[in-house]
Amino acid sequence: MKIIIDVMSGDNAPEELLRGAVDAAESFSADIAVCGDAGIIDAVARECELDLSRLEICHAPQVISMEDSPLCVMREKNDSSMALGLKMLSEGKGDAFVSAGNTGALVAGATLIVRKIKGIRRAAIGTVLPFTPPFLLLDAGANPEISPEDAVQFALMGSVYAEKMLGRKDPRVGLLNNGAEPTKGGEKRVEAYRLLSENGKINFVGNIEAREVPFTPCDVLVTDGFGGNIVLKLCEGLGSYMFSRLKETMMQDFITKASALVMKPKLKKLKTEFSASEYGGAPLLGISKPVIKAHGSSDARAVKNAVRQAMTVVSSGVIPELVRHTAKKQEEQNTEEQ
Amino acid sequence: MKIIIDVMSGDNAPEELLRGAVDAAESFSADIAVCGDAGIIDAVARECELDLSRLEICHAPQVISMEDSPLCVMREKNDSSMALGLKMLSEGKGDAFVSAGNTGALVAGATLIVRKIKGIRRAAIGTVLPFTPPFLLLDAGANPEISPEDAVQFALMGSVYAEKMLGRKDPRVGLLNNGAEPTKGGEKRVEAYRLLSENGKINFVGNIEAREVPFTPCDVLVTDGFGGNIVLKLCEGLGSYMFSRLKETMMQDFITKASALVMKPKLKKLKTEFSASEYGGAPLLGISKPVIKAHGSSDARAVKNAVRQAMTVVSSGVIPELVRHTAKKQEEQNTEEQ
Repeated sequence: MKIIIDVMSGDNAPEELLRGAVDAAESFSADIAVCGDAGIIDAVARECELDLSRLEICHAPQVISMEDSPLCVMREKNDSSMALGLKMLSEGKGDAFVSAGNTGALVAGATLIVRKIKGIRRAAIGTVLPFTPPFLLLDAGANPEISPEDAVQFALMGSVYAEKMLGRKDPRVGLLNNGAEPTKGGEKRVEAYRLLSENGKINFVGNIEAREVPFTPCDVLVTDGFGGNIVLKLCEGLGSYMFSRLKETMMQDFITKASALVMKPKLKKLKTEFSASEYGGAPLLGISKPVIKAHGSSDARAVKNAVRQAMTVVSSGVIPELVRHTAKKQEEQNTEEQ
Repeated sequence: MKIIIDVMSGDNAPEELLRGAVDAAESFSADIAVCGDAGIIDAVARECELDLSRLEICHAPQVISMEDSPLCVMREKNDSSMALGLKMLSEGKGDAFVSAGNTGALVAGATLIVRKIKGIRRAAIGTVLPFTPPFLLLDAGANPEISPEDAVQFALMGSVYAEKMLGRKDPRVGLLNNGAEPTKGGEKRVEAYRLLSENGKINFVGNIEAREVPFTPCDVLVTDGFGGNIVLKLCEGLGSYMFSRLKETMMQDFITKASALVMKPKLKKLKTEFSASEYGGAPLLGISKPVIKAHGSSDARAVKNAVRQAMTVVSSGVIPELVRHTAKKQEEQNTEEQ
């Protein structure tokens, strides 16, 4: 198995990305190819004393920044590390691609270079929220706005993913909304509710209010990329905030200070529950091959986790399963229409 | 000053609402009128041994449920406690109206019975998020979808509110979005960003990502009611979740168990930071008189807090200030257009 990593992407590129790649190559039984400017990679490796001998280095002179427009990956920056990685994946020169870069560009590039699964209208970022038990949130940020039909496709793809990757039988699907009643959320969400309820292939459990999210109200939580991004990022932000406030509170007197020391490892573990990035990267569901979005602020550990996630996605066969599942569904639809 | 309370509204009606009303009448220097079925109110008072002698009881035989459609308040349920309270406010028989009931019906009823401020297109729920320092979130749930022009009106109303009620000079306004860049969030949010940047009356600080929310990134956070509801409810949900997980963690061994006892009051205080309902009710900004939405799950204490909030809104004069401000802005606009 070969995993391709865009080491020029994200806030901590290239150093942390390279460290993560080296770590992954040492720890896992996979080949690692890294895409980026060979000169810069070499310089960073020397400065940080990184041994790159286990990595395959694939030179790409350009870098896509967070400010670049999504389509730059096809146009003015088609010589970028991201474009190269996607091309390699598309041509079969690797089994999965990991990037911590510009989400818009990654989605556009994956859609146009690697291609969507036939019949799927939009790719969605599927993030596993690390509550107890974990569950899938999609779309976590690829499409700020979606149609009711997209919500149905996300529900179907999410169900396959939850079954294959989280081991859920007949996964419960919920729709994130600002109220439990079917009439809530404005026209599009009301229509999405109706379509989800009527679809015999979806185990729809209704609207989910944000208050219930930490208590795993379903196995697949469907929403648009705006709502998904708020859920994901607010969990992270509130996690950091709460633990810094807790620390302050505990440091106020002697007894609690002492117990803070005892509790430190436990609290640290608890803190990771609020950061989905600890869980690894998030696959772009709807793309015909495994593309994994790592968090923009990924450090070496997060990159290593994203590589592990990519390997699990590859070996689970969930992406080919999505392709088969979508083709079968379309066949059924065509038969019904005849 | 007289505050009108819809005691038939919310999950804990009428008992907790009545308790809150009695408490408020005893604690505050305001007259309290309660709307609801006089027979039921009387029965509950006898059962719970509540002394209603300080309250003015205004009989309304109907109750609006959470499932009723927004417009029912004008039609089949115009004899409800909510409709009566709104009529009383509109006719000057009270200075503010508090309800924990159906949000859609309250917004529709306030819009049609009490009336919007002239020139305002939609009323928004303005909720103060209790971080350090607190700041205003709007819309917290009245309108699942808004236009870019609505975002500008919310920003202007929010600025007046933050100045008058939170004491902020030249309040910083942010737009909740799934990325910092002006190109993020889909067409409507890109256009809202542009209008907010170009408006000379708004101190716009740009897009705010959900991760920053707990760190008070601005004084007024503008979003649609879907996004606002997610922020509000996820803060609540994560607060509960985190403290229950913390409790579990602390109860695991003797030392941390002992320190849990010492820390209990401090942790309890910390927990309230995550529940906006502790802060009192949320005003409907854009309505010509003070209408306060209390949390659906309000208990007696939350109702009392909402009454206090209503009294502060009345005595601050923020609603007449919003009326003046909007009229002035329209005059300027008319002059510019001539």
